[in-house]
Amino acid sequence: MNASYDIAGIGNAIVDVIFPATDAFLLEHRIAKSVMTLIDEYRASQLLLLVKRGTESSGGSAANTMAGIASLGGKGKFVGKVKNDRLGQSFARDMRAIGVDYDTPPAADSLPTACCIIAVTPDGQRSMNTYLGACRELTPDDVDANAIAASNVLYIEGYLWDQENSKASIRKAIAAAKGAGRKVAFTCSDPFCVGRYRSEFLDLMQNDIDILFANEAEAMALFEAADFDSALASARAWKGLASLTRSEKGCVIAAPNGEVHVLDAAPVARVIDTTGAGDQFAAGFLFGMSKGMDLRGCAKLGGIAAAEVISHYGARPEMSLKLLEAQSGF
Amino acid sequence: MNASYDIAGIGNAIVDVIFPATDAFLLEHRIAKSVMTLIDEYRASQLLLLVKRGTESSGGSAANTMAGIASLGGKGKFVGKVKNDRLGQSFARDMRAIGVDYDTPPAADSLPTACCIIAVTPDGQRSMNTYLGACRELTPDDVDANAIAASNVLYIEGYLWDQENSKASIRKAIAAAKGAGRKVAFTCSDPFCVGRYRSEFLDLMQNDIDILFANEAEAMALFEAADFDSALASARAWKGLASLTRSEKGCVIAAPNGEVHVLDAAPVARVIDTTGAGDQFAAGFLFGMSKGMDLRGCAKLGGIAAAEVISHYGARPEMSLKLLEAQSGF
Repeated sequence: MNASYDIAGIGNAIVDVIFPATDAFLLEHRIAKSVMTLIDEYRASQLLLLVKRGTESSGGSAANTMAGIASLGGKGKFVGKVKNDRLGQSFARDMRAIGVDYDTPPAADSLPTACCIIAVTPDGQRSMNTYLGACRELTPDDVDANAIAASNVLYIEGYLWDQENSKASIRKAIAAAKGAGRKVAFTCSDPFCVGRYRSEFLDLMQNDIDILFANEAEAMALFEAADFDSALASARAWKGLASLTRSEKGCVIAAPNGEVHVLDAAPVARVIDTTGAGDQFAAGFLFGMSKGMDLRGCAKLGGIAAAEVISHYGARPEMSLKLLEAQSGF
Repeated sequence: MNASYDIAGIGNAIVDVIFPATDAFLLEHRIAKSVMTLIDEYRASQLLLLVKRGTESSGGSAANTMAGIASLGGKGKFVGKVKNDRLGQSFARDMRAIGVDYDTPPAADSLPTACCIIAVTPDGQRSMNTYLGACRELTPDDVDANAIAASNVLYIEGYLWDQENSKASIRKAIAAAKGAGRKVAFTCSDPFCVGRYRSEFLDLMQNDIDILFANEAEAMALFEAADFDSALASARAWKGLASLTRSEKGCVIAAPNGEVHVLDAAPVARVIDTTGAGDQFAAGFLFGMSKGMDLRGCAKLGGIAAAEVISHYGARPEMSLKLLEAQSGF
């Protein structure tokens, strides 16, 4: 069956509030550096009071990836829950404006739309504080099995595991994809997230996942490896396709047929904000796959997309990735 | 048969003159940066006049590796030709002082002992100017077939190809090693050296070499690859064990059984002079192999040895590598 979508993504629908901060600020306000910490509504309101020069933009890991897919000219569908409030409306408007199919009905009477308060330090690292709010309301009814079955790849973010009740929705999406013979891709999201749900993730890899995205810290947490090389050995022993990203050290791709690629990072004049780097790598990689590129090509396109997004504040591409792809000689 | 030696090395016997220089100095005196250039006696004498604060020390690529093997506590033999002049006597004395078996008879009536005038720039890169002199006098009579047959591994440097008449000696050494069922290891030496003898090196890999050492530039030259990943693919398609070093990016080891290791570089507080980094990596790697370590262990030990030698001026270890190995928890 021909697919209606290149990729269907399911994840938390979040609006980001990004602001510059010093390492001293992180220490003073007990913000854990470079990772994602879950916060409650009170802590969110307290942190927002501290933000002097913040910018608000639609975010969420899988949602960012879908934005990248659209920027590359791909056809994508996103599933994720907002409330019908100001932030929720803004999130939906942004998704549609960039050409992503997004029609998850907003929660009417729920917690507010999720937000992620992101402190960006001068070294470009982002430290994320997520209030999940309306994301907790995602239900299996929000998952359109026909749309998932009509997508080449189903892409799932690990952060979803932070809501116990989103698991039924994920299971429904996976069943729809598998039933139609589609591929299932999964991103680990965050090393602490891996720590929280490691055995569930490994179980998922055993049974459902075809394509795994992990950065170095996530891969080491997932495989309980002391160094990258050990994590790579475990990834190669797994039956799926592993895409392991290593920030400025580039990426390593390990395929089930034994193929291994070691690619350098795409050049970046200056790293401003690493928010969304992994999301955009996944966008380029998955878009490449959907166009039948070889693994080297997929990884290179992932690197180009990631390089764009770390060159400026914000987690979504500012330049047309389709144009960047063309300029890079694809 | 038990081996009398862990490694037998054959290469150019050279005394290094190392001095600090600026990039402007390299440009002014037409010294090609980061590679090895062959020079004649006149150019050598002219360059030596320019050296204000130089230090003289025994060098030569395979000879440096043998010094590393000895520093690790291994038993090594070196084959290489000097003249019986001041530099030649100093070279022989140094080799014996560090515990390497060295008994190649010095040439009596020949060109002077070889020297390599090495300009080290503030970025730690070394630019080498080699006058081969007495190295040209190496003959098959200098190769003790019994000693080679009694060594676990024969290690050959690519630089030897710069003297047409050393090839008969290499062939004799390879035949002795192969006849005794020993392994043959080969280092590419320099990307330009690879450029000069590429087809011969590939032929040697097809027929004689079991273990290949190449840095990134050498591997790309050898396999005519546009990037590291393509070189890696060619190395993996080859039937031998490839050790590909990438300076601060660490190394990638590809084994005939499909095993691939991607290791980070060992930490170095400050890179002073990269002269001999590849030689010491090979020393650690080959010593590890001779002790039955797994490939990860061999590569880690190679990294530790390389990190020691780039932390100071000069191409041979200043600290006991055996001690460093022990401190690193091997």
